[in-house]
Amino acid sequence: MNLILLFEDDFISSDRVALSGRRAEHILKVHRAKIGDRLSVGLLNSKIGEGEVIEINSFNIKVELRVKFFIEPPAPLPITLVVALPRPKMLRRILQSVSSLGVKEIYFINSWRVEKSFWSSPILEPNNLQQELILGLEQAKDTILPNLYLKRFFKQFIDDDILQMISRYQTKFKKNPLAITAHPKGVIACPQNIEQSAILAMGPEGGFIDIEIRSLEAAGFTTVNLGDRILRLETAIPFILAKLF
Amino acid sequence: MNLILLFEDDFISSDRVALSGRRAEHILKVHRAKIGDRLSVGLLNSKIGEGEVIEINSFNIKVELRVKFFIEPPAPLPITLVVALPRPKMLRRILQSVSSLGVKEIYFINSWRVEKSFWSSPILEPNNLQQELILGLEQAKDTILPNLYLKRFFKQFIDDDILQMISRYQTKFKKNPLAITAHPKGVIACPQNIEQSAILAMGPEGGFIDIEIRSLEAAGFTTVNLGDRILRLETAIPFILAKLF
Repeated sequence: MNLILLFEDDFISSDRVALSGRRAEHILKVHRAKIGDRLSVGLLNSKIGEGEVIEINSFNIKVELRVKFFIEPPAPLPITLVVALPRPKMLRRILQSVSSLGVKEIYFINSWRVEKSFWSSPILEPNNLQQELILGLEQAKDTILPNLYLKRFFKQFIDDDILQMISRYQTKFKKNPLAITAHPKGVIACPQNIEQSAILAMGPEGGFIDIEIRSLEAAGFTTVNLGDRILRLETAIPFILAKLF
Repeated sequence: MNLILLFEDDFISSDRVALSGRRAEHILKVHRAKIGDRLSVGLLNSKIGEGEVIEINSFNIKVELRVKFFIEPPAPLPITLVVALPRPKMLRRILQSVSSLGVKEIYFINSWRVEKSFWSSPILEPNNLQQELILGLEQAKDTILPNLYLKRFFKQFIDDDILQMISRYQTKFKKNPLAITAHPKGVIACPQNIEQSAILAMGPEGGFIDIEIRSLEAAGFTTVNLGDRILRLETAIPFILAKLF
């Protein structure tokens, strides 16, 4: 937790927050904060600043901070990430990782090789998803909560969401977005330092099947490879985002 | 397992291997291979090729393949990675990840913020470390096992290993290697597409302490940052390697 993310509910007056639970525990046990210490704080979907410890209740694990906010959060990555739903354990790590990397639009979609059971995992409950995204923000010292969408029907996602996404982009920028699918079978190398916004689709373990790749291509996606090596999703995502931006 | 990694012990004749255990199970249960199927195989520290399934014993989970090898493995990354020993759970994932990315020289070192208990984890036994590296090779379709070193004494590591590393490089290339420490406090941005070999040092959760950063700088390391965001080690490693190469 490199930044303590604050919510409206935390405020007990205009410049004072009262924290308990996970954040108070972290402040007392990891930071070992004392009265007067200053900690990095951020207001959800708003600015970053500083919180001065003004009251500690070690017995009940409660902390009060006097806060001020004065810096914009780091710039988001101009990317919409589309990922075939990974297994729950990996999903947690990927949510934290993409949130820390600054991705703000994330779609998890179905695909032939996504196991059905993944869609009934408790991690997909909105509160649980949001919790992982928050951990990523706290790690990266960011405040802007990503938008996350779950799409259980591949074809419908392509026919509706993708086409809408592309047409919104066309209206706004008067050109097509860069839309790419990262797949070992791609014959084109992944572009680098693209300096524009992009839509990036990544398949499940084992990859998208051919018909899915063709649907994505029909919708305007170029299939690109990341080199000779096949990387796991959690390694491939930071790798490709570093190449693109 | 995108490639089945083979060892000398697997051979029952010059072009025939007999597999049981984890690999046989994977071939039968995940690939659902039948007699005559061809699978990607690789010989440890040697070439990649193809294995034809010639015998299956489903009851005892045994498989025999006729193998030939004809392609060089993918190029390694010209980097020596120096990482403060992470907690055991993260260490497993990092071993797999760096092995899949093509890193061939990996040092895990001590640092002020590395918890002592990490050094007594059973994962540090050579067989366990090697197993994780092998999983990374199988993922990335590589065969070259990385060299891995454990260094429990930071100062000794800097005074002996780093200085030797740098002097070997100077002798060979008649110049200094690019040596960098990735750290949020670095004032220089991480270089990109460096087109030379490098030594990259990465700190523990919470970062190297100031005196460690200064020791690394005295040994020839430049402290660089990865931007505004502080990334966890498992996200930062693929991110920075993609930037460098």
